[in-house]
Amino acid sequence: MKNKIYIVGMGPGKEEMMTVEAIRALEQSDVIIGYTVYIKLLGERFSEKELRSTPMRQEKERCVLCYEEAAKGKQVALICSGDAGIYGLASLMYEVGADYPETELEVIAGVTAASSGAALLGAPLNHDFCVISLSDLLTPWEQIEKRLRAAAQGDFAIAIYNPSSRHRPDYLQRACDILLDSVEETRPCGYVENIGRENTVAEVCTLKELREREVTMFTTVFIGNSQSAAAGNKLITKRGYRI
Amino acid sequence: MKNKIYIVGMGPGKEEMMTVEAIRALEQSDVIIGYTVYIKLLGERFSEKELRSTPMRQEKERCVLCYEEAAKGKQVALICSGDAGIYGLASLMYEVGADYPETELEVIAGVTAASSGAALLGAPLNHDFCVISLSDLLTPWEQIEKRLRAAAQGDFAIAIYNPSSRHRPDYLQRACDILLDSVEETRPCGYVENIGRENTVAEVCTLKELREREVTMFTTVFIGNSQSAAAGNKLITKRGYRI
Repeated sequence: MKNKIYIVGMGPGKEEMMTVEAIRALEQSDVIIGYTVYIKLLGERFSEKELRSTPMRQEKERCVLCYEEAAKGKQVALICSGDAGIYGLASLMYEVGADYPETELEVIAGVTAASSGAALLGAPLNHDFCVISLSDLLTPWEQIEKRLRAAAQGDFAIAIYNPSSRHRPDYLQRACDILLDSVEETRPCGYVENIGRENTVAEVCTLKELREREVTMFTTVFIGNSQSAAAGNKLITKRGYRI
Repeated sequence: MKNKIYIVGMGPGKEEMMTVEAIRALEQSDVIIGYTVYIKLLGERFSEKELRSTPMRQEKERCVLCYEEAAKGKQVALICSGDAGIYGLASLMYEVGADYPETELEVIAGVTAASSGAALLGAPLNHDFCVISLSDLLTPWEQIEKRLRAAAQGDFAIAIYNPSSRHRPDYLQRACDILLDSVEETRPCGYVENIGRENTVAEVCTLKELREREVTMFTTVFIGNSQSAAAGNKLITKRGYRI
């Protein structure tokens, strides 16, 4: 029988925002591997598991560690925040897995920040939408800019991941400037910080105001489409029902 | 104190693919309201709740029913498949809610088909992506076509919802033809049927082959970006790590 590694999306952080099957996969595992921050978010109930982490930017090493531990006969779970298949390690695990044909993978879907952040803001993604990361660690900025322009061109609602970091404090401003080439300044937008953790923030603002906001690496940003409206502190993208 | 209605994303169908807080919200509710198909997917353990449904195309009536039941002092949960904020009833509930200022809403995020379908196919959405519905019930076809072209232009991976129905059996073919104007015939694609239910199907194929496939209203379709690859029966969209 083949070894199997679970690749588990843990959602935003709180255990109650995990799916039942994600929790079950962690319970059934001998060793849980992940980025340090996510390992720390796991509750007390997993403290008896063997917990292993590798630092940021050592993603390939983290994947290799999963396969090596599985080869020892242990049941391994790799945890990712949100959904493992959305900017998580699912694809890298498949790529690295070419060297480990005796091991199979099971991806267990989780709630990504587009969904969990949207829930806090109201319904900003309730029609066709794009998800775009502003991190240019692995993607040339020209590609990111091209996608922002295409998203505006298609009148998509947009969820923006990784809008800022210490090394790129002005990237959200740059993205807003690109969008402002074709989108009006008053377009309803919003952002959510620390979803499912302490000090959660959910704010609605215009695109022009968004450009001036300071955000962190724990912020998810939402840009409305031409049918979106702010209603109090909620951002609603209409589906088109007659009401 | 205000009444509160829970708007619950139930994920693809199986209870184990619901989040813990979604299950808890249903447990705490007196009445669970939803489209007939989703009400039937609920397990035995909710059979003692008051279960109410309205047929398809009576979405506004379903929302009004929620507010009316809440006004009687009952705890109401409205269930939607996948995530309530992604082609679900969250935005319509906010719109209808303008007439019911005494009631507040809490959206509880769920796993949408883009995530649950991707998990079955491998990692097709592991970089920037778009979600587009082919249903033209509430959206003019010209808008859908514009978004498909913009998604191809931006080299997004794409998840397509509602690719077909009895009244529009050829819509996926039409969408593929639009994409084929700018995307090569061999582009890796895939589709998933009946996620989290019986007779789940997950298939990888090329864009040209996808055009000929028969799909149903329970199919979710995935189009790779220029960096996607088929590996056996998996569809992998690379993030750009050096391996």
